Amino acid sequence: MASSAVETFTMDDTLDVEKSVVGQDERSQWVLNGPEPPTPWHELKDSVRKPFLHCGKQLSSLRNQPGPKLLVSILQGIFPILDWGRHYKATKFKNDLLAGLTIASLCIPQSIGYATLANLDPQYGLYTSFVPPLLYAVMGTSRDIAIGPVAVVSLLLSSMVKKLKDPAVDPVSYTKLVITATFFAGIFQAALGLFRLGFLVDFLSHAAIVGFVAGAAIVIGLQQLKGLLGLTHFTNKTDVVSVMKAVWESVHHPWNPRNCILGSSFLIFILITRFLGKWKKKLFWLPAIAPLLSVVLSTLAELNGPHVGEVAKIGLVVAVVALTESVAVGRSFASMKGYHLDGNKEMMSMGLMNIIGSFTSCYVATGSFSRTAVNVSAGCETLVSNIVMAITVLLSLQFFTKLLYYTPMAILASIILSALPGLIDLNEAYKIWKIDKLDFLACIGAFFGVLFASVEIGLLAAVIISFAKIILISIRPGTETLGKLPGTDMFCDIDQYPMAVKTPGVGIIRVKSALLCFANANFVRERIMSWVNQEEAEDLDTKGNARSTIQLVILDTSNLVNIDTSGIASLEELHKNLVSHGMELAIANPRWQVIHKLKVANFVRKIGGRIFLTVGEAVGFKSEC
Amino acid sequence: MASSAVETFTMDDTLDVEKSVVGQDERSQWVLNGPEPPTPWHELKDSVRKPFLHCGKQLSSLRNQPGPKLLVSILQGIFPILDWGRHYKATKFKNDLLAGLTIASLCIPQSIGYATLANLDPQYGLYTSFVPPLLYAVMGTSRDIAIGPVAVVSLLLSSMVKKLKDPAVDPVSYTKLVITATFFAGIFQAALGLFRLGFLVDFLSHAAIVGFVAGAAIVIGLQQLKGLLGLTHFTNKTDVVSVMKAVWESVHHPWNPRNCILGSSFLIFILITRFLGKWKKKLFWLPAIAPLLSVVLSTLAELNGPHVGEVAKIGLVVAVVALTESVAVGRSFASMKGYHLDGNKEMMSMGLMNIIGSFTSCYVATGSFSRTAVNVSAGCETLVSNIVMAITVLLSLQFFTKLLYYTPMAILASIILSALPGLIDLNEAYKIWKIDKLDFLACIGAFFGVLFASVEIGLLAAVIISFAKIILISIRPGTETLGKLPGTDMFCDIDQYPMAVKTPGVGIIRVKSALLCFANANFVRERIMSWVNQEEAEDLDTKGNARSTIQLVILDTSNLVNIDTSGIASLEELHKNLVSHGMELAIANPRWQVIHKLKVANFVRKIGGRIFLTVGEAVGFKSEC
Repeated sequence: MASSAVETFTMDDTLDVEKSVVGQDERSQWVLNGPEPPTPWHELKDSVRKPFLHCGKQLSSLRNQPGPKLLVSILQGIFPILDWGRHYKATKFKNDLLAGLTIASLCIPQSIGYATLANLDPQYGLYTSFVPPLLYAVMGTSRDIAIGPVAVVSLLLSSMVKKLKDPAVDPVSYTKLVITATFFAGIFQAALGLFRLGFLVDFLSHAAIVGFVAGAAIVIGLQQLKGLLGLTHFTNKTDVVSVMKAVWESVHHPWNPRNCILGSSFLIFILITRFLGKWKKKLFWLPAIAPLLSVVLSTLAELNGPHVGEVAKIGLVVAVVALTESVAVGRSFASMKGYHLDGNKEMMSMGLMNIIGSFTSCYVATGSFSRTAVNVSAGCETLVSNIVMAITVLLSLQFFTKLLYYTPMAILASIILSALPGLIDLNEAYKIWKIDKLDFLACIGAFFGVLFASVEIGLLAAVIISFAKIILISIRPGTETLGKLPGTDMFCDIDQYPMAVKTPGVGIIRVKSALLCFANANFVRERIMSWVNQEEAEDLDTKGNARSTIQLVILDTSNLVNIDTSGIASLEELHKNLVSHGMELAIANPRWQVIHKLKVANFVRKIGGRIFLTVGEAVGFKSEC
Repeated sequence: MASSAVETFTMDDTLDVEKSVVGQDERSQWVLNGPEPPTPWHELKDSVRKPFLHCGKQLSSLRNQPGPKLLVSILQGIFPILDWGRHYKATKFKNDLLAGLTIASLCIPQSIGYATLANLDPQYGLYTSFVPPLLYAVMGTSRDIAIGPVAVVSLLLSSMVKKLKDPAVDPVSYTKLVITATFFAGIFQAALGLFRLGFLVDFLSHAAIVGFVAGAAIVIGLQQLKGLLGLTHFTNKTDVVSVMKAVWESVHHPWNPRNCILGSSFLIFILITRFLGKWKKKLFWLPAIAPLLSVVLSTLAELNGPHVGEVAKIGLVVAVVALTESVAVGRSFASMKGYHLDGNKEMMSMGLMNIIGSFTSCYVATGSFSRTAVNVSAGCETLVSNIVMAITVLLSLQFFTKLLYYTPMAILASIILSALPGLIDLNEAYKIWKIDKLDFLACIGAFFGVLFASVEIGLLAAVIISFAKIILISIRPGTETLGKLPGTDMFCDIDQYPMAVKTPGVGIIRVKSALLCFANANFVRERIMSWVNQEEAEDLDTKGNARSTIQLVILDTSNLVNIDTSGIASLEELHKNLVSHGMELAIANPRWQVIHKLKVANFVRKIGGRIFLTVGEAVGFKSEC
C-alpha cells in the first residue's frame, strides 16, 4: 500500500521538481509534505506475510510444472540430497570417503566420552552419531557440517536432568528423561524453523558463546576428575567450588592410583592416535538395531509421566543452545565456501533429525565445531562424508558395546579431557577484549557463570549482560556537538573530526540514539539543556562578555529513526526551556516516522515551522534573521 | 583525556588542512585517522564523576564565602524557603492564601476518601494532608505542586498490603504495615535522589500512566459500590470480574437502599459544592497531635516484624509510582512557568517528607495532579499555599475526626466517586492513538491489566510493553534504500522523498538502527542480501537482461552509533557474500566508535579500504573504476 502511494506521488510531482532549479523553500516542503509512512500494523502484516509470500512464489512456480516433475520439485525441496545427488561423481566420493573416515575416527571416542558426560551409557553416544547424521544428510543444506553429540549440549542435558532424577539411583528413568528432552528439543527446533523464529538463536552473542564454551570446558574437565582419579564420593553439582571441595574431601576416602595412571596414559595415547587412527570395523547390523527400537515405545509412554513440564523446558534450552552451535558452524563454513544456507530450513532439518533420533534412543545431536573443521580440512565435498561416518560408527557399534562394558571410567575421562583444550579459545577472547569491552563483559560473565554457579546461570548471565548493553545504550544515549568540515557542506562530530569548525551563535547537537522515547527523552532533554548552559558559560569565560551567545539550537535528527509521545513531549519542553533562555530550536533532517509524528502532534507549528532538510540550511536560516 | 587528545590533534593538523584545498583522498584520511574515541570505562568514570564534580563546583564556590554566609548558603541549598522567603511580599501572600484555601476545600474531602480507599481510618488521610505539605514547603523546589494523598497510590497501597494483613480482621496491624511501607517508600525516594537514579521514574511512560490511571479509576469506582450500595458481603480482590461477581451475588444478600439514596444525594451535593466550598474551621491543636505521636514508637517496633521484606518491596513500588506522578506534575508546571526543577533534589525532598511523615502516622503523600492544577488556576505564587492548606487541614482535623466517626460509608464512597471522572483522560488517550500506535498499546495494556488482573500487573504490563517496543525496534531494524535528492548532494530515503533518484549500478542502503549488534546483525545481513537479490531481479525483469546490475553496495552507516564483535563478523560475512555475487561493499560516513572498531578488527583492510566520508564520494569511487 505504502509503495503504491509513493508511485502516485512520483508521477505527479517529481517531474516538475526535476525540471526547475529547486530552492531551499521548496526543499523544506519536501520535508514537511512527504508521503505518510506505513503504520506499525502494515509493517507487522508485511513481516508476517513475507515468508508465506515466499512459499507462495515457490508454489506458483511449481504449479506451472507437469505432474511428475512437480512431485520431484517438492521432494527436492524437502530432501536436497535428491538435487545434489544427481550430479554426484566418483571423484567427489573419494574425497568424501576420506573425510568421512577421518571424522569417524574423531567421532567414535568423542561420542563415547560425551555420552558419559551426559551420564548415559556409552552406546547412546554412538547411536547419536549414527541416526542423526544419516537424517541430516538427506535433509540438510550445509555441505560441511559434521553431526553428532557435542560436549556443551551433553553437559547442559546432564546438569539439568540430574535435578529431576539421579542417574546413580535410577539410570533407566534418567535415560528416558534425557531422550524425552531430546524429543522436545527436536519439536522446538522444528517449530522455530517453521515459524521463522530463528532470530532467537542470535540472542546468544558470539562473545557470550566464547566465554560459555570455555567455562563449560573447565567444568567438564573437573567432572572427569571423578573418573580419572577413581573417586568413590563425588558431588552432583557442576560449579568449581563444589567440585574442588568434593576432590579435597575425597583425599580422606579411598581412591585408585592405578586408575589414574591408566587414564593418563590412555589420554596421551589418544592425543597421539586421534589424528592418525582408523578404527577397526566389524559387521553386526541386527543386534545393534534391536536395543534402539526397544526404547521407542517406552519413550512415548514417558510423555505422560510426572516430569513432562520440566523436561519440555530443558528441551527448549537445549534446543536453542544446540541450534546456536550448529547454525554458527554451518554459517561460517557456508560463507567461506560461498554457498547459501537457509537458516529456517536448517532448523527444520535439525528438529526432524532430533525427533526421529529420540525414537531410536539417540540424545540431542547437533553440528560439532571441532569435527566440522576436521571434515573441511580433510577435504569433504558433500554430506556423503556424514553418511560414511554414520556407517563407520554403525560398524563399530557392536564391537564397542561389548568392549565398553569393561572400559574403565578413567579411559572415558581421558577421552573427554583430550577434547577440552580446543574449547578454551584465549585468542578469540583477546580479540573480543580488543574490539569491544562490553562484549568481553558478556564473555567473562558467561565464563564465570558456568564456572562458579551452573550451566543455566552462565547462559542467563550472558543473555542478560548482552541485553543490558542494548538497553543501557538506548536509555543513556550520548550527545555530540557538530561542526562544519572545511571544504564541504557536511556537519560532523567535532570530537571525531577535530578539524570541524563550530558556527558562532549556533549550537548544533545530535543525539546518539535511534529512538527518542519514554526511557531516554528526559535524559536527552536535560543533557541538551546542560550542554547549552555550558557552551554559554564557556563563551563568557574565555571571550569576555557574551561575545557569541547561542541564539539558535539546531537538533540534527538525521539518525533518529523513531519517536514516541514522551519523546515529543520532551522536545516541546526543550523548546519552551530554550525560549525562556532567549534561544530558538530548529530541527534538521527528520526521518520519515519522526516528521510524520511531529506533524500529527502539531509540534511543527509550535516551533514556528523551523524544520529543515539539512543542518546547513538551518544555519542559513539563522544568518537570514 | 579524550578532549586533550583532540586539542593536540587540532594544533598539529587543522591549520595545514584549512590552508590547502582539501581533496577527496585527504577527506578519506580524516575518516580513517581520527582520534581514538573514549573507552566505555572512561565514559562510565565521567558519568559517575559528573554529579560529584557538580557538587564540588558548588562547594568550591561556597568555600570562597565567609563563615556565616557559608552556613546560610548551605542551609539555603537544603531549604529553598530560606532563599525565596526573604523576597516574600504581602501581595504574594494574598494570592497564596486564596489558592491555599481553595486546595484545602478540595483536599479535605479527597484526603478522607483516599484514606478510606487505602482501607485506613479517615483521619490518616488528613494527617497526610498536614505534615508532608509543611515539610515539602520548606524543602521543595517546585512552586505550584500541591502535596497530599492521591487516589492511585492509595489504591496501590491497599491492594498490596491487603495480601499481608486483612484490614477487616486486624485494622491496627494493617495500618501499621501501611505506615511502615510509607517509611520504606520515603527511604527509596531519598535514595533514588541521592544516587541520581531518578531515570528509573522514566520507565513508566506517559502513555502507560494515562492507561494505568484510567484503569485504576474504574477499579476504585467499583470498590466504592460496597459503600454506596451498603453491601455486607464483598470481595477483597480488585479486578473487574471479581467485583462484578461480588455485586451480582449480593443481590441475594440484604442491602441498604437508604444508604444508596444517602450516598447518591451526597455525591451530587459534593459535585456542586466542591468548587465553591470553604469548609468550617475550629481550633483544636493539642488533641489532634496526641494520636499522631502515639503511633511513632509502634511504627518503629514494626520494623522488626515478620513482613519487613514484603513491606519494603511494596514501599519500592509505591515510591516509584508516587514519584512518577509528582515529578511529572512538577515538571510540567515548572516548564509552563519557565523555572528549573532539580529532579534529584525533588526526590530527596519527597523522600524526607515521607520518612518524617511515617513517624507522624501519615501514609504516602505525593504531588496531586488535580489539586496542583486547581492551585495554579487559583493563582498560587509560592509553596506558602501548601502551608495555608496544611493549617486549614489541621484546624478542621479535630472537628472531622469526631464527625467522621458517625459518617456513613455511603458518603465516603460518594466523595471518592466524585473525584474519579477526571482521572479517565479519553482525550489524551485519543491523542496517543493518533501519534503512536505502539504507545497506545502500552496505554491499553496498563488499562486492562489494572482492570482485569491487579494493580501490580497493570504496571508490569505497561513497563514490559514499553521495553518490548525498544527491544523489538533494536532487534528487527528496517532498512531503507537511498537516492540522490535533485539539486543537492544529499542521499535520502526514497520512500520518504519520492523525488530522490537511484544511482544506476549502485545500491545504497541504510539500516534503521543505532546499533549493529548480536541481536540484529544476522537479520540485517540477511535483509541486505535479500534486498540486493530483489534489486537485481527487478532490473532483469523490467529492463531486459542485466542492464544495470549492481556492482557496488554502499552501506551508509551515518546513523550507526556503535557496533560489536557480532556486528563486525556479520559485516565481514556480508562482504564475502557480495564478493561471491560479483559485487563490492563500501562504507560511507562511519561514526567515531564504529570506524575505531572496524580499524581494530582489521575490517578496513579486508574490504580494501573502501571507507568514505560521504555517500557521494563512495558513488564517485565507483564511476572512477
